[in-house]
Amino acid sequence: MTRFALTVEYDGRPFMGWQHQDHGPSVQQEIEEALHRITREDALVHAAGRTDAGVHALAMRAHTEIAKDIGAFRLMEALNSHLRAVPVAILACEAVADDWHARFSCVARHYVYRIANRRAPLTFDKGLKWRVPAELDAAAMHEAAQLLVGLHDFTTFRSVHCQSASAIKTLDRLDVERDGDEIRVHASARSFLHHQVRSMVGCLQMVGRGQWTADDLADALAAKDRAALGLNAPPDGLYFVRADY
Amino acid sequence: MTRFALTVEYDGRPFMGWQHQDHGPSVQQEIEEALHRITREDALVHAAGRTDAGVHALAMRAHTEIAKDIGAFRLMEALNSHLRAVPVAILACEAVADDWHARFSCVARHYVYRIANRRAPLTFDKGLKWRVPAELDAAAMHEAAQLLVGLHDFTTFRSVHCQSASAIKTLDRLDVERDGDEIRVHASARSFLHHQVRSMVGCLQMVGRGQWTADDLADALAAKDRAALGLNAPPDGLYFVRADY
Repeated sequence: MTRFALTVEYDGRPFMGWQHQDHGPSVQQEIEEALHRITREDALVHAAGRTDAGVHALAMRAHTEIAKDIGAFRLMEALNSHLRAVPVAILACEAVADDWHARFSCVARHYVYRIANRRAPLTFDKGLKWRVPAELDAAAMHEAAQLLVGLHDFTTFRSVHCQSASAIKTLDRLDVERDGDEIRVHASARSFLHHQVRSMVGCLQMVGRGQWTADDLADALAAKDRAALGLNAPPDGLYFVRADY
Repeated sequence: MTRFALTVEYDGRPFMGWQHQDHGPSVQQEIEEALHRITREDALVHAAGRTDAGVHALAMRAHTEIAKDIGAFRLMEALNSHLRAVPVAILACEAVADDWHARFSCVARHYVYRIANRRAPLTFDKGLKWRVPAELDAAAMHEAAQLLVGLHDFTTFRSVHCQSASAIKTLDRLDVERDGDEIRVHASARSFLHHQVRSMVGCLQMVGRGQWTADDLADALAAKDRAALGLNAPPDGLYFVRADY
């Protein structure tokens, strides 16, 4: 058996998320079906992060293990050929050690959240950014975001469906920058809770509009209560950017 | 009658181009139908440039003239509401003088052509960039591009369907830059011939791959013959960026 690490780019719009779902297509299923057509094996694919429905990836990392004698480059080309009909592309493929695990070996995960701060409806970026018509103060958002950086109990920013053993996590980076009418929120941590980035972005947006002060954000964090959440941002603007090993 | 100038963003993928076509939807038709639903008038819409099927616009300028008493802001909002189902957005709308003409008053047009220089198939950017798998030398492309800047007979770079009275045009700018795996070609002129940007980009791509030298490009220009063209790039990567007045 050879273990291969994959770097995967996908447009999350048509998918129910990374993981297998009964009620619709998933990125995992597309890649596993492509692998089956190439190898006739039933290989599983494990990812660094299980993104939700409508969430995108610029460079998700994943791994699989197959018995067929095939080189990494040929496997990548064959996968891309079989994935032609769906917005999933294998950017890189390499043979790795048998104990390399896309999820458990990962030491840091990086996300970006893209907000289109404009009045006009989206054209190219429909489903690829969150459109917020009200003018946002990116500097105020960035300053407030720093209150969330560090070791905290993120219960407020965690989905009720979150399966993580603990809500206490260290957030390494939460930077907000404006580039024209696009506002980007960069988030980095060893791991995130379910909906954590979207929940943080939803509240930062309230700060950006002036509906919340930085103190309100601090109070929401201190409440350790999902009911204290201001807003959960939609999946549209969320991208898994990179995994570090 | 009030004349309004519109700034229009559109994703060209579902359209047969800007201009009315018998065989499919056009951006012009979508906007004129939206105007009709708002005003019950049969107003025409004139654009700075008539982009081809599959070509995009970040800020096309256009104008129309209507009798209905409506403010510019309300007209923009109403248009965007009626255009919801298609990837066309009105970014700005203002009342202008009766002799302001989107096409004839325009003194400069700016395009960008986006190449995805990568092996993997496109996901997010399918139809929005031209994918070229072979490694391109952007510096060589930029250097060769300068041979086309200035006053020339661009017959080689002109579609056989071009209706312009003369193929002699002044090209003000043709810059090639690399940003990661994206190569952007910026082209500016008072006006362009039909297919001129795509034809220039197609030949620059041959220089970038090493199939053509800069001398080959100079020879193609000097030939003043469409048959000397290396390659016409697909519409996917072409964007109308800005019109100056």
